[in-house]
Amino acid sequence: MLTRREMIMSAALAGGAGFLTGNTASAQESKPTVPKAPPPPSRRTRGELPYTPVHTLNGRSLPFVMKNGVKEFHLVAEEFRHEFAPGSFIKAWGYNGSTPGPTIEAVEGDRIRLLVTNKLPEHTTIHWHGIFLPNGMDGVGGLNQPHIQPGETFAYEFTLRQHGSFMYHPHADEMLQMAVGMMGLFIIHPKEPEDPPVDRDFAFLLHNWAVHPGTYRPDPAIMLDFNLWTFNSKVFPAIEHLVVGTNDRVRIRIGNLSMYNHPIHIHGHAFNVTATDGGRIPPAGQWPETTVLVPVGAMRDVEFIADAPGDWAFHCHMSHHTMNAMGHALPNTLGVNQDGLQEKIRKILPGYMAMGEKGMGEMQDMARHMKGPKNTLPMMMGEGPFGNIEMGGMLTVLKVRDGIRTYEDPGWYQHPEGTVARKVSL
Amino acid sequence: MLTRREMIMSAALAGGAGFLTGNTASAQESKPTVPKAPPPPSRRTRGELPYTPVHTLNGRSLPFVMKNGVKEFHLVAEEFRHEFAPGSFIKAWGYNGSTPGPTIEAVEGDRIRLLVTNKLPEHTTIHWHGIFLPNGMDGVGGLNQPHIQPGETFAYEFTLRQHGSFMYHPHADEMLQMAVGMMGLFIIHPKEPEDPPVDRDFAFLLHNWAVHPGTYRPDPAIMLDFNLWTFNSKVFPAIEHLVVGTNDRVRIRIGNLSMYNHPIHIHGHAFNVTATDGGRIPPAGQWPETTVLVPVGAMRDVEFIADAPGDWAFHCHMSHHTMNAMGHALPNTLGVNQDGLQEKIRKILPGYMAMGEKGMGEMQDMARHMKGPKNTLPMMMGEGPFGNIEMGGMLTVLKVRDGIRTYEDPGWYQHPEGTVARKVSL
Amino acid sequence: MLTRREMIMSAALAGGAGFLTGNTASAQESKPTVPKAPPPPSRRTRGELPYTPVHTLNGRSLPFVMKNGVKEFHLVAEEFRHEFAPGSFIKAWGYNGSTPGPTIEAVEGDRIRLLVTNKLPEHTTIHWHGIFLPNGMDGVGGLNQPHIQPGETFAYEFTLRQHGSFMYHPHADEMLQMAVGMMGLFIIHPKEPEDPPVDRDFAFLLHNWAVHPGTYRPDPAIMLDFNLWTFNSKVFPAIEHLVVGTNDRVRIRIGNLSMYNHPIHIHGHAFNVTATDGGRIPPAGQWPETTVLVPVGAMRDVEFIADAPGDWAFHCHMSHHTMNAMGHALPNTLGVNQDGLQEKIRKILPGYMAMGEKGMGEMQDMARHMKGPKNTLPMMMGEGPFGNIEMGGMLTVLKVRDGIRTYEDPGWYQHPEGTVARKVSL
Repeated sequence: MLTRREMIMSAALAGGAGFLTGNTASAQESKPTVPKAPPPPSRRTRGELPYTPVHTLNGRSLPFVMKNGVKEFHLVAEEFRHEFAPGSFIKAWGYNGSTPGPTIEAVEGDRIRLLVTNKLPEHTTIHWHGIFLPNGMDGVGGLNQPHIQPGETFAYEFTLRQHGSFMYHPHADEMLQMAVGMMGLFIIHPKEPEDPPVDRDFAFLLHNWAVHPGTYRPDPAIMLDFNLWTFNSKVFPAIEHLVVGTNDRVRIRIGNLSMYNHPIHIHGHAFNVTATDGGRIPPAGQWPETTVLVPVGAMRDVEFIADAPGDWAFHCHMSHHTMNAMGHALPNTLGVNQDGLQEKIRKILPGYMAMGEKGMGEMQDMARHMKGPKNTLPMMMGEGPFGNIEMGGMLTVLKVRDGIRTYEDPGWYQHPEGTVARKVSL
Repeated sequence: MLTRREMIMSAALAGGAGFLTGNTASAQESKPTVPKAPPPPSRRTRGELPYTPVHTLNGRSLPFVMKNGVKEFHLVAEEFRHEFAPGSFIKAWGYNGSTPGPTIEAVEGDRIRLLVTNKLPEHTTIHWHGIFLPNGMDGVGGLNQPHIQPGETFAYEFTLRQHGSFMYHPHADEMLQMAVGMMGLFIIHPKEPEDPPVDRDFAFLLHNWAVHPGTYRPDPAIMLDFNLWTFNSKVFPAIEHLVVGTNDRVRIRIGNLSMYNHPIHIHGHAFNVTATDGGRIPPAGQWPETTVLVPVGAMRDVEFIADAPGDWAFHCHMSHHTMNAMGHALPNTLGVNQDGLQEKIRKILPGYMAMGEKGMGEMQDMARHMKGPKNTLPMMMGEGPFGNIEMGGMLTVLKVRDGIRTYEDPGWYQHPEGTVARKVSL
Repeated sequence: MLTRREMIMSAALAGGAGFLTGNTASAQESKPTVPKAPPPPSRRTRGELPYTPVHTLNGRSLPFVMKNGVKEFHLVAEEFRHEFAPGSFIKAWGYNGSTPGPTIEAVEGDRIRLLVTNKLPEHTTIHWHGIFLPNGMDGVGGLNQPHIQPGETFAYEFTLRQHGSFMYHPHADEMLQMAVGMMGLFIIHPKEPEDPPVDRDFAFLLHNWAVHPGTYRPDPAIMLDFNLWTFNSKVFPAIEHLVVGTNDRVRIRIGNLSMYNHPIHIHGHAFNVTATDGGRIPPAGQWPETTVLVPVGAMRDVEFIADAPGDWAFHCHMSHHTMNAMGHALPNTLGVNQDGLQEKIRKILPGYMAMGEKGMGEMQDMARHMKGPKNTLPMMMGEGPFGNIEMGGMLTVLKVRDGIRTYEDPGWYQHPEGTVARKVSL
């Protein structure tokens, strides 16, 4: 008995796939392919939806079924194989086969039921971060509810009394469970259409991982010395690009469940910080920024007009966080004359390559010819139209193109004549 | 020669105890009991006081004596035994027998004199963080004044020209002296009553401690790898609860003298960030948040209406900071099949228990049966109405109850029928 | 063919020195002297300039030449000897012989050309952080342009369409290149004069360095465990003081290209956070603060009226960041009775001194008599009018004096009678 509007919304969210059971979703998601998001309608094409659907980077929204006026969602906590980028896998914990779990997308005023099935080897719960709800639905194990034991399913049910950007994550053995991937986004659209509406609405979560070389389990005891830094559990260049049309009004919702307060930087534009998981910031209080500091346990909505066509880097500005796996206690070879060293060491260690005397830029090319430790990405691995992009980790590209309406990658930007930095003779 | 208003205030602050000498206070405070705060008057019962007294978590305000129109306070810098929670003690440095020292509470326009007696083995000073004062009263040793040598007493005297939330701490060998506990809150109430006034006004300081297993001295050389994370030098579950009445207007003043910018998160509510130690933020500039990032060396006032009855977690959102003492370089046993391992190791190490294969949740139960290193808390140790609360460290509970006027713990929340997440069959 | 105004500005910027080639500048800058800034005109004396020139701490602005209406600047990326403070040198990478490189100072509406010559052993680029420009001028190597190979010069050219506080730094092997010093400030003055204008306009960048004892190369693989913390690549007491007149309107522009979000604290005053590299914050959204958290990859402008004469500490509030080189894994000797220990150890290790039993304050005096590791500063090293200032690193002094118009150090503050904290008898 879905209303017409509910059917439209459900179809938009599910991409036509209908309701997925946890197991099926899991099997689908654990394939090491980049999830193909269905092309969601942009503002101009969203038809009868009163809002612009959120576009979860490398992700998807969770389908629901309507039951007597209640939107019922089903999350399955489970273990699966997750890929940060081709060549780097882990045994992650998450929801419905992915980390982050699918985005819960609903509308202010909705009555919702969230079924949570625990297929993990230990108990869990879910906390609906930032959402106003009855105390017994808040999900802190031991404090607000009994833990959900392995094999059990719990039901959370409440009415959405607010709108904005929120998160979900366990509040049971939370240090460990978040460290291995358990988290997701929870987006509540406003009842009344926004004025002006956004044309694009992106969302992703920041996280950090300690995957020791040659291992497949993130180490939950690590507090700071992580070696993988992700947007929605992916590293550059496996992170989906932010594809937008020129002069589109763009929102990006960024949540942080890592251990660092990450400063996320945009190139070529400035954005306004417009909302947190506590609500909308009054216009006079919105700070213009090129870098938004996203505190741990917070969401930040940023909004801007994408008025500058091109391919713009979008990344965490902590320089070690745009690197993939690297040690932080390497011998420092910068400026060390290594003449003859390679030959000497090769007598003991065949294939040894002396590196780093002149910087680390050369390492990216070397990485193509050298094998690193098992299950370990090179620390830099992107390639762009002009050569290597010497970064990894928390980096993607904002692609602004005239007239584009889909989220499909338009390829690299074609620069107008004379607008690229050029070699000159003095 | 106290005026009537001064006598009222002095009595309110002292809880009738009168002036305490440093030594007496020290002896009292070093007992491992949770300090009993005198029940301060709530707004509705505060009588003739023009402000709501601040309620220092696990603490107290410092009594003063009036001398010729000057409020005279006396702080004694000294060493004492401090308890983070039953089972974990240190030799701390602080003031008048406690860390943080007693809260200095005064009123805009007051002339104050602060006597500081040094009973430490090395010199010290006090800096009055955020307060406008003559340069020679600012307390940076060597720059603004000579150091206070052991055995000496110094007098600071100035007129309070502002109101808000401030701190005090040494500015002499400050890295070491703050690392071992020397800090306190300094609250200046406005001359003109606030409109609307708050019903509850809480205050606490964030700190981090490196207490190596089996030792009793915080290690001041540690920069990041701390193992105890505290609100007013206490860890969960020894931190006092935030007890408030339903629909009370609540202020929480949070200061940070640790080495991390901590994101402090509230459940079930959103608050406005209303002031810093630099002053009140204009209403249009106040951000709504569920998580306030408190920078090191800053105060943040947050305010909200406690409109949701229940027991709400209130904590730092960095997941390692809601743990008590743990190593950050443990072997990672998650998913490691330990069958038979326990038996083999027990031949060498009697009593060894294999743990962590299925997560860390089981560790809290184990901790009841196993002895950890001497003077070391289990990393998780709370118990709630529904079982273990698998956290420690920077966590307390906001208890919102209808009609409550005191700060006394009302016990666990009694949930209305049907409002707790429940087990279902699919 | 410079206009009169262009000549005035160029002269103001160059201090009359004219255009410097990279090599010449390098030779000049690599001398271990504190750079003498030419006394720039204050507001009252700035003559025909429509803005107050920025005063780069321990630095200078880059001269330009006008070519057909385009301001042409020349940056030379190169290696040189850099001094943190007398006694501590490194082989740094930077621009025109300094780290940070010279400040680029221009005016909204200017057409500018930036020539970048690479004299490093590896390729580089420059990204103009926060500036609106054509995509091909954005400087991300591989993405927006080919890398600048050693020996090559590239030209960037664009029109300045905004004003505010920005930065420049490499976007090629950026983790390494920033770690060894490559960064600079880029200040764009507004076309229309500010109302009210500022009387003083300071600027500096925050950075962290890992210089292992006895070495001369910053280690780029270190992520967190740095041992030198700098304002414009200098440590206290080698950082220039902030000299201002009483009641001057003061702006301080602080940029951060380190790995920590640093909280920068002022004494004796509160400031407003007025702008970021994203633009000016609306007045109602400006937070009053005594401590501004400067995120990595962001600029913060703070402004205040310097109404309190005196010598005020100005520093990062993370207590380990006002220390110079120290280990963070020292044995903790606080409270350890070392009687007789010194004598015993001296039999094995002549000259050994037992230290730290009563705190670390004594270490500063000891440091005068003991030799530390080669090329390593004592961790505390300042001296003030009242004795040792037990800090190093990110600390300088705001000196507020009646009637002062220059940036010359006026010496220590002379306190009015009776305004200094004093020893009393109880």
